[in-house]
Amino acid sequence: MATAGKVIKCRAAVIWEAGQMPSLEEVEVAPPRAHEIRVKIVATGICRTDDNVRAGVFPNIDYPVIAGHEAAGIVESVGPKVTCVTPGDKVIPLCLAQCGECTSCLNPKTNFCLKIHFFQSQNLMPDKTSRFTCKGKQVYHFLWTSTFSEYTVMPEASIAKIDNAAPLEKVCLFGCGFSTGYGAAINSAKVEPGSTCAIFGLGGVGLSIIMGCKTAGASRIIGIDINKEKFAKAKELGATECISPNDFNKPIEKVLVEMTGLGVDYSFEAIGHIDTQVAALTSSRLDSGTCVLVGEPPSGLELSFAPELILCGRKLIGSLLGGWKSKEALPKLISDYLNKKCNPDALISHTLPFEKITEGFELLHAGKSIRCILMF
Amino acid sequence: MATAGKVIKCRAAVIWEAGQMPSLEEVEVAPPRAHEIRVKIVATGICRTDDNVRAGVFPNIDYPVIAGHEAAGIVESVGPKVTCVTPGDKVIPLCLAQCGECTSCLNPKTNFCLKIHFFQSQNLMPDKTSRFTCKGKQVYHFLWTSTFSEYTVMPEASIAKIDNAAPLEKVCLFGCGFSTGYGAAINSAKVEPGSTCAIFGLGGVGLSIIMGCKTAGASRIIGIDINKEKFAKAKELGATECISPNDFNKPIEKVLVEMTGLGVDYSFEAIGHIDTQVAALTSSRLDSGTCVLVGEPPSGLELSFAPELILCGRKLIGSLLGGWKSKEALPKLISDYLNKKCNPDALISHTLPFEKITEGFELLHAGKSIRCILMF
Repeated sequence: MATAGKVIKCRAAVIWEAGQMPSLEEVEVAPPRAHEIRVKIVATGICRTDDNVRAGVFPNIDYPVIAGHEAAGIVESVGPKVTCVTPGDKVIPLCLAQCGECTSCLNPKTNFCLKIHFFQSQNLMPDKTSRFTCKGKQVYHFLWTSTFSEYTVMPEASIAKIDNAAPLEKVCLFGCGFSTGYGAAINSAKVEPGSTCAIFGLGGVGLSIIMGCKTAGASRIIGIDINKEKFAKAKELGATECISPNDFNKPIEKVLVEMTGLGVDYSFEAIGHIDTQVAALTSSRLDSGTCVLVGEPPSGLELSFAPELILCGRKLIGSLLGGWKSKEALPKLISDYLNKKCNPDALISHTLPFEKITEGFELLHAGKSIRCILMF
Repeated sequence: MATAGKVIKCRAAVIWEAGQMPSLEEVEVAPPRAHEIRVKIVATGICRTDDNVRAGVFPNIDYPVIAGHEAAGIVESVGPKVTCVTPGDKVIPLCLAQCGECTSCLNPKTNFCLKIHFFQSQNLMPDKTSRFTCKGKQVYHFLWTSTFSEYTVMPEASIAKIDNAAPLEKVCLFGCGFSTGYGAAINSAKVEPGSTCAIFGLGGVGLSIIMGCKTAGASRIIGIDINKEKFAKAKELGATECISPNDFNKPIEKVLVEMTGLGVDYSFEAIGHIDTQVAALTSSRLDSGTCVLVGEPPSGLELSFAPELILCGRKLIGSLLGGWKSKEALPKLISDYLNKKCNPDALISHTLPFEKITEGFELLHAGKSIRCILMF
């Protein structure tokens, strides 16, 4: 391609400081180095995690930074030694890499990859340099994805080739929200037919959990949110009933236990609040319930509860990106979408041109959007 | 039998008040009522839980009480409507009942029974009366077992008939300690061949966990205790190495992670301390480890840790009586013992006549005994 090997000038949204809104800028994107891929982003969603970066509550971020991690695009060029894609391929960035080589990637029980940001900063490429420059200043990467830029560079462990028939403005959701929720029910909890489920938080991830529970054959799916405007969509996607903690003068876990006898078979926390995590655990069936933590609370907080909750028979587990081994599993999940086996289209509440990114964040803040997709 | 239907006078150890040692007394044991069984106890172990009753830190105990719950005996007489045993049968008392009728008993995923003491006080028989009298005063039951009495009365949900070839002075251990630890590894954790395990606390339960891990084919079994006198027995029973937290100037969970790379596949807490519960969780493999809580801390305490420990991929689970559905599973486990498939004999460090019960408690307090068995 004409641009291969050259610096590309393009639009991006730069967060200059924690607490500021992203600012539209022209950035320079350097060519990919060995084992790196430069991608033209076509569509990118705005996720709560991006807002946490903006707000300064996501751990270990360096500013200025280009956020964004739920996207789909087309390979523009590849650096030396890249074998998994060629220019023109449709791809999705992976906010949880799959290097395929670490001890976790080799472990069939987990989708954790030791190239995760907990262990290895993803604020710079693996060689500790940035591909982004703005106004002569180095700009940091985020999760090795930085999809709030028309062009971005990623290590090959962080990219998955998908079916060229996939509509990019839809399948961007598979990069985070949909896969996270759907997989939490299907892979992590392994919800069984006929079971009772409770989902705390009815945002994009919570709604995707509902879809996963429904696909798994759950007979009772209870959605929980303090914003009742979210109930209609939750019911459309599979919730059999929805309740608001504000409608009861007792703790919501007590309400759920009264509704179900001993508690629900599976509870999911998709908000990232310590108090709802404890409520989700307590509302799971005391002798055999499984509570799945999906939402990530701000770092530094502690979960605190009586050990008897566990000793009786409850299980407390977590789920990252729905338990999918990202590079190998997400392309298959997108094929399932193309074969109409799953369909997250209903999660897309707004589609805006990239220039309106600020409006997209405002919709999120106002609780008006499920997913707002930005199109380049 | 000559005694059937009559009050029996016999020896028992009565704890008159919390904090006192059990006192040898002559008690009167009333005949069994409907669905009850009177048993001549032959052998009974002294477990840490009995000492918690003595010390007054076990929840919801009424005094005076006859403790004891790990025992074996012979049916003396049965009340009306009892069908599961007849006089002369060898039996073990069940400190966790299996009524066979409640929603938990009908759930194949759990061995919890709603007749557990958390829900239904077991300080009196189900009809809310006591079968014990001493010096004209009503004496309370404990867990419906009260095996520190030569004769005791139990509901039929709390008794299992065992093979008449079973040596009662040995198989009493199946009533609590051995089954609890062995099953925590085999049933609750489902330890896999080749895996790495860490066991916090090398008392009778911890040593039984080691035996379970070995039977399951674990390749590395790390015993942890501050009392190094326990290491020899742990190694004899299957530990591949033993360490004391006192030998390191860093937290034991850090030591275990350094020893294993990402942490152990399975960690077990068999002490009942909040701080070792958190250490056990933290030392399990971050991407896929399972931490099993076995020891029961004093009530009122809270387990507190960063939710990231779970979100990454660890599982926190509990185990009660080793996950065995007591009435149906323990007789089979005792048959396995008779067929030499498991052997807890090495846990019996002391055997004393019942009159020396105080000496038995003193051995426990001094950390000198694994299990002290009292013989009537």
